[in-house]
Amino acid sequence: MKNILIIGAGRSANALIKYVLQVASERQWFVTVADADVKLAEAKVGNHPHGRATWLDVYKVNDRREQIGRADLVISLLPAHLHLEVAYDCIKLKKHLITASYVSAEMYRLGDEARDRELIFMGEMGLDPGIDHMSAMRTIQQIKDKGGNITAFRSFTGGLIAPESDDNPWHYKFTWNPRNVVLAGQGTAQYLEEGKFKYVPYHRLFLQYWVVDIPGLGECEVYANRDSLLYREVYGLKGIPNILRGTIRQRGFCDAWSALVRIGLTDASYPILDSDKLTYHGLIEAYMDNGKLGSVKERTARMLDVDPESEVMEKLEWLGLFSKKRIPIANASPALILEDLLLEKWKLRKDDKDMIVMQHEFEYELDRELRLLKSTLIMKGENSQDTAMAKLVGLPLGITSKLVMEGKITHRGVSIPVMSEVYEPVLAELEGFGVVFEETETVLKKRRSNK
Amino acid sequence: MKNILIIGAGRSANALIKYVLQVASERQWFVTVADADVKLAEAKVGNHPHGRATWLDVYKVNDRREQIGRADLVISLLPAHLHLEVAYDCIKLKKHLITASYVSAEMYRLGDEARDRELIFMGEMGLDPGIDHMSAMRTIQQIKDKGGNITAFRSFTGGLIAPESDDNPWHYKFTWNPRNVVLAGQGTAQYLEEGKFKYVPYHRLFLQYWVVDIPGLGECEVYANRDSLLYREVYGLKGIPNILRGTIRQRGFCDAWSALVRIGLTDASYPILDSDKLTYHGLIEAYMDNGKLGSVKERTARMLDVDPESEVMEKLEWLGLFSKKRIPIANASPALILEDLLLEKWKLRKDDKDMIVMQHEFEYELDRELRLLKSTLIMKGENSQDTAMAKLVGLPLGITSKLVMEGKITHRGVSIPVMSEVYEPVLAELEGFGVVFEETETVLKKRRSNK
Repeated sequence: MKNILIIGAGRSANALIKYVLQVASERQWFVTVADADVKLAEAKVGNHPHGRATWLDVYKVNDRREQIGRADLVISLLPAHLHLEVAYDCIKLKKHLITASYVSAEMYRLGDEARDRELIFMGEMGLDPGIDHMSAMRTIQQIKDKGGNITAFRSFTGGLIAPESDDNPWHYKFTWNPRNVVLAGQGTAQYLEEGKFKYVPYHRLFLQYWVVDIPGLGECEVYANRDSLLYREVYGLKGIPNILRGTIRQRGFCDAWSALVRIGLTDASYPILDSDKLTYHGLIEAYMDNGKLGSVKERTARMLDVDPESEVMEKLEWLGLFSKKRIPIANASPALILEDLLLEKWKLRKDDKDMIVMQHEFEYELDRELRLLKSTLIMKGENSQDTAMAKLVGLPLGITSKLVMEGKITHRGVSIPVMSEVYEPVLAELEGFGVVFEETETVLKKRRSNK
Repeated sequence: MKNILIIGAGRSANALIKYVLQVASERQWFVTVADADVKLAEAKVGNHPHGRATWLDVYKVNDRREQIGRADLVISLLPAHLHLEVAYDCIKLKKHLITASYVSAEMYRLGDEARDRELIFMGEMGLDPGIDHMSAMRTIQQIKDKGGNITAFRSFTGGLIAPESDDNPWHYKFTWNPRNVVLAGQGTAQYLEEGKFKYVPYHRLFLQYWVVDIPGLGECEVYANRDSLLYREVYGLKGIPNILRGTIRQRGFCDAWSALVRIGLTDASYPILDSDKLTYHGLIEAYMDNGKLGSVKERTARMLDVDPESEVMEKLEWLGLFSKKRIPIANASPALILEDLLLEKWKLRKDDKDMIVMQHEFEYELDRELRLLKSTLIMKGENSQDTAMAKLVGLPLGITSKLVMEGKITHRGVSIPVMSEVYEPVLAELEGFGVVFEETETVLKKRRSNK
């Protein structure tokens, strides 16, 4: 019997576990779901005849190796920094490995060893990164096949809240790891515009957003996501003058989030002494030094250079940042205090639907025209448990694990899903789950003649 | 014969080496000056009968231990992160150690071991930190002795350029480690105001400066320096409602430096790809994303929200940031590119005099009055070699080494110079070198009666 090991049974695992159990029962495979919270794993496996839940503390080397040793393939849903230990075990024990996380430099360094052992180490196989790579690569290949010359590639993704469940002034709720949302963008974003490198320091990231039209949704905001330059070569777009990866938020979000950044509330690098003896009002006051005049709210507005009655201030007020409520955690970093507050404020209600939005924009020259092709995916979840997020992260992992188990992937070593033998079948099967990109094309410029 | 080992013969070592050699010849001690650049060490020792220069690569453990083993006392002028290795050797080989650097948490952890071995590990024994601690402690003690209750303590220091040598719009030149100047303030500054903690994130540090009157100099700017809260207990000021340590700059500096921070030029965390193929103009353009309208200079002014003809922009222009000159270093971080540029622009000319300014401000209640005592030191250097900076960093180290060698310090373990047995004799001897604080006192408030 063939065995699949899924490490991690958290929020993102629902759709994955369901899919893999289904496939396993059709093919007589067996699935082990391991988590430090065995009850969580048990609840998700149920009493499925082809699955079992097991307790696993990944820090316990022997237990971890024992579980990995019994599997043919490992799917790791661990936080990114924990994949590496699992990867070392997979090398040693000769097991394939699939994750949805960004592939780190350390992971890439295992490439030769994985290849020598004929192993598939596939990273960035979730939504973003994951479906974005695959759907972009498919379209890039189509444009190349018909002779087009791509001059700009922009790719935006957002994990949002569906309009019908949107009931707060931020138009945002947590559908994914809250810590990652609070710390998003730290470092310097990089992209390429008209052949020139562009850098955006973190303290300006949420000020320098773009307003993008998403067919079927309207205007959204996009801020630059990490280092877009890294993807020129892997996408086969070496020499392209414009490349940008971005994160989508609803209108109004970026200015308000930028206010939190500018106040200093997204910093996880130091503790606020005795933070549990402060109120949120007191915390904000601790960041203000613009004279004694006016309330803390007025001083904040002045520091931010916005109107006290502006939408930005409304959003801050709605969070309760000017309230005299006591902060519940001691000696916490400002980022942790903010995360704790947002967990309550941005919590999904039971029936809330999330909404994934992904849009690629390709500018390319063909037949003396400069064309703009937009390829857009909008997908909503069912409720707070069956989210589109969990589905779009989990299904690519699940489908890939099936392809690997069936020997349909020939590529070996550390990789991301940019090869057609991977993205074609994965995208094809995803369509059956409603993952369909709508395309709209316009002509930006016509050239008269070539002379 | 007693032996003193000085590790490091760089810019800050001149006054120290001169002083220690002089003392050594009076007392028949012997001084070894060790540096990776032996020529530098030789030049500074000359053919002094009580000194010798030696080559030392501090990364070579055996060589380092051999040198330390021969000494009775070690003065380390190494960069702060290298002191720890020297400290471990000093513990092992039972040698006293003196440095001018901030004492790290790791260094404090050696306290018990140093005390058990009867060793003196004295850190923060330069100018700032160093003379600031000692002169503040002396005055704090005087105020306490006469029954005063200190309600505010503020301490400001700046390594500036003397007015007669000031010929650039920044009114600043490098008189100290350029890298430290470029990276100054990264992290979050903390201080205490009216009993409340205050935090200043780096991206606002140079915007939130104070204008301070320095008798004999006029108005200067002060920005918050690191974590001022750490010094409440060591200064015996536990419970004080106001404490602030700050760095002094001339008027106009902070706004302009803040512009460099906001553009993103003080970030050392990532390389600019092929930076040697860019001009400074191109580098600045890479940080601009505010539309295509206007020159890079105009777009920069717009991003900074200042007038294109403002003093801030004049200072940036004077640095050559909008020039089409090519950047000379490849794949350098923005901070390194900036440092390299400033090294040329802010270089001391041979006859330039530097100027150290230190001012403590004490508010205290005595005899039903609230008084403000300012204690101010202004000291100029001779020229670019004999700087006030080198003197005021080196002499406290030298004087302390004499006191230690003569057995005049009883305190053992890791410490900073806040005990009177140290600061009294050191400050007394420094007076002979012109280190004299001028005091001015004013009454801020008189209370009518106590009823």
